[in-house]
Amino acid sequence: MAVTLACVPDFDVLVIGSGPGGQKAAIAAAKLGRRAAVVDRTDSVGGVSIHTGTIPSKTLREAVLYLTGLNQRDLYGQSYRLKEDITVADLTARTQHVVSREVDVVRSQLSRNQVTLLPGTGRFVDQHTVAVRDAVGQDRLVTAEHIVIATGTRPARPASVEFDDRTVMDSDSILSMERVPRSMVIVGAGVIGMEYASMFAALGSKITVVEQREGMLDFCDGEIVEALKYHLRDLAVTFRFGETVAAVERHARGTLTVLESGKKIAADAVMYSAGRQGLTDELDLDKAGLRADKRGRISVDEHYRTAVPHIYAVGDVIGFPALAATSMEQGRTAAYHACGEPVHAIQDVQPIGIYTIPEVSFIGRTEDQLTDDLVPFEVGVSRYRELARGQIIGDAHGMLKLLVSPSDRTLLGVHCFGTGATELIHIGQALMGCGGTVDYLVDAVFNYPTLAESYKVAALDVTNKIRQIDRMAD
Amino acid sequence: MAVTLACVPDFDVLVIGSGPGGQKAAIAAAKLGRRAAVVDRTDSVGGVSIHTGTIPSKTLREAVLYLTGLNQRDLYGQSYRLKEDITVADLTARTQHVVSREVDVVRSQLSRNQVTLLPGTGRFVDQHTVAVRDAVGQDRLVTAEHIVIATGTRPARPASVEFDDRTVMDSDSILSMERVPRSMVIVGAGVIGMEYASMFAALGSKITVVEQREGMLDFCDGEIVEALKYHLRDLAVTFRFGETVAAVERHARGTLTVLESGKKIAADAVMYSAGRQGLTDELDLDKAGLRADKRGRISVDEHYRTAVPHIYAVGDVIGFPALAATSMEQGRTAAYHACGEPVHAIQDVQPIGIYTIPEVSFIGRTEDQLTDDLVPFEVGVSRYRELARGQIIGDAHGMLKLLVSPSDRTLLGVHCFGTGATELIHIGQALMGCGGTVDYLVDAVFNYPTLAESYKVAALDVTNKIRQIDRMAD
Repeated sequence: MAVTLACVPDFDVLVIGSGPGGQKAAIAAAKLGRRAAVVDRTDSVGGVSIHTGTIPSKTLREAVLYLTGLNQRDLYGQSYRLKEDITVADLTARTQHVVSREVDVVRSQLSRNQVTLLPGTGRFVDQHTVAVRDAVGQDRLVTAEHIVIATGTRPARPASVEFDDRTVMDSDSILSMERVPRSMVIVGAGVIGMEYASMFAALGSKITVVEQREGMLDFCDGEIVEALKYHLRDLAVTFRFGETVAAVERHARGTLTVLESGKKIAADAVMYSAGRQGLTDELDLDKAGLRADKRGRISVDEHYRTAVPHIYAVGDVIGFPALAATSMEQGRTAAYHACGEPVHAIQDVQPIGIYTIPEVSFIGRTEDQLTDDLVPFEVGVSRYRELARGQIIGDAHGMLKLLVSPSDRTLLGVHCFGTGATELIHIGQALMGCGGTVDYLVDAVFNYPTLAESYKVAALDVTNKIRQIDRMAD
Repeated sequence: MAVTLACVPDFDVLVIGSGPGGQKAAIAAAKLGRRAAVVDRTDSVGGVSIHTGTIPSKTLREAVLYLTGLNQRDLYGQSYRLKEDITVADLTARTQHVVSREVDVVRSQLSRNQVTLLPGTGRFVDQHTVAVRDAVGQDRLVTAEHIVIATGTRPARPASVEFDDRTVMDSDSILSMERVPRSMVIVGAGVIGMEYASMFAALGSKITVVEQREGMLDFCDGEIVEALKYHLRDLAVTFRFGETVAAVERHARGTLTVLESGKKIAADAVMYSAGRQGLTDELDLDKAGLRADKRGRISVDEHYRTAVPHIYAVGDVIGFPALAATSMEQGRTAAYHACGEPVHAIQDVQPIGIYTIPEVSFIGRTEDQLTDDLVPFEVGVSRYRELARGQIIGDAHGMLKLLVSPSDRTLLGVHCFGTGATELIHIGQALMGCGGTVDYLVDAVFNYPTLAESYKVAALDVTNKIRQIDRMAD
């Protein structure tokens, strides 16, 4: 039975954690006129996303692309480098700048929307009360009608591996590395692993990726994953699929990674990117009548409610897909539900964006999924090198692929690989979200020269194919 | 009365000019199984767009942005420059490379689609016959059932001004300048004038823009034009609106531009960008029963037919809007009509893209137009500096503005200023083209961090405003 508040609570909505999901939950509640507060440590405002996750890794990526001149090589030659010896200082100057500005943005958005920021770490005292412990260890009790758990995750560290955060690292500690390693083993070919593999390969590190499964990114288009592997191999990345790490040894000259198959890999450093653990162990969830699973995750219903109806959980702490964009939407949806505001369910069609080099983004289904589902489709492809804009920016390998239903001409999937993929995918998403067909793209006028033109080129390609099939059957 | 062909003509569709409009006309006809040919000089394949217009100017712009490091200054400091002394060779190495690759792309697209390329210049002999004169002056007569005129334009040169193509130039000859001028007068604040003003200002030239009218780009959003002027002034651009050039004098030390108001402007160089002239004077239009207006332009109907029904005209030679993207669509539409293939009219809502620095793009109506039309609207704004992606790329001034109908919540206009504006506008265009509303944007999940997120931020801004108004009236 739910505990009822004896008096007026301090806040209508109290959020634990100020990452993308927590921020958006608090701001949405405040915009609806509710008294909202966010609990987070002063040095953690913005959450993992800003401090050790999305923002630093994407800023680092931008610095890598710029400083290596990698995306200028088609124009200035394969040996082109903007800067010969790229140091960690070169790479992180930019990162620290962006991180501190992003923290300012979050703080200002919270204060502009009159969200109270409670500095410290939160833990449950009862179902409506959270104790906030500040930097000097003082507890303050805060009550709220609704509570949103948005505490996020940290990298999972296998107990058998000794991390020193200098040569054996996870995806947090890699951000404070002292020098760019000449060689590195990356354990785990998930999104985070492949993003870092791309960046260090671009910087000239010799990368070996070790992955237990037989392949990687199997939710993506197969052709694009193969193209990504091809380009990464071209940057001296070695893939070891279907292999398990038996031991990681630290030696004076570097690390030795021993695989169960008996192979040994010598490298300056090892980075683990093998899963993440929900940050719930210090929440005293039992005081609220809640519990996490063994990976620290909390279960929720379709409204992001936990087993206790006035307590919600959003973001990475609830598991898949654990993307900042999705977490924001979950936070907003949870706040709307808590405040009794009508809310549309999150749209079925959600984009996936992976900041590898080149980047990958898609929406809708893949060729394999459609084939498995017995849904007929026709393919339209546009290659950046055939677009004026592709030539201007020197992207020779980028491509856009449309999967189109030959019967009703709707888009079943859009898959993009190369410059701007994560931006461009939203054109296809708008079309799919608003019920448009491929004929819209055939008739639309696109700015010239843009990469967006690839939609028209691919649409003409697929409609010509469909026309040929139709004529054959006439 | 139309002349009838006595025997089978050489081609079903003959196109004069291989620019964006001509290419697409020929390729569309060929894809429909027709025998198609394009007439153009060997050194002009691809038209003005590739050789002296869109492609070289946009490639130059990309080189300017990269080599000046202009878009890195928010991150690396205001005095940051990638290269101190940027020479014409630095700028044009890239341009020549892209131009020659684009010519290859056009040639390969034509040949892959089995379009015959007839080298030389075309002129009418009669309504179905064109004489193609090759490089050595030999004429070849070619007959066709349908003819498409796609000859384009050249810069208009006032008779009173003496052009030497070194210090007094038009927008063609500026591409072969010998050095980056320390100072330049640009006459005409149209799209071409402002694009070059941006580039040379970014390179450090002191620019004075002289424009007869009281303002510039008056078809664009007023707030964005003011922001553009502000940023150009920040790069040491001076505007002289409502001023007319009385004379341009060439002296040993440079040029002196004398305005009718009596002001004199000393500068290394002068560039005229005051209108363009249709390339029809050598077509012998009278032999086909056609005539051009005094600016060399040909009139067409809604199917791009001239006064002679089997002769079409497309692209810059028919006048406004004279954009590559629109010309392509006109070419395709004309070919479809000629071949009796059903064609949707070009969509009402067409984007405008202007490659100034920062770039400008919009679709739909402006605030002023809506106010004049007595259409109520509410405004939603997103500033790049509040987006994570804006921080990462260091674009502090970019913005996206949505104009939304408070009654049916459709988008009435989308205006974008800053990095990627010409690409991003197509998300709004897809929405407007497929009947979506601002609620789609509120609910959509956007990849993070992207600039596309600005749609969601602006949509939340405008829907919050509309909600406040609605509640006030409750």
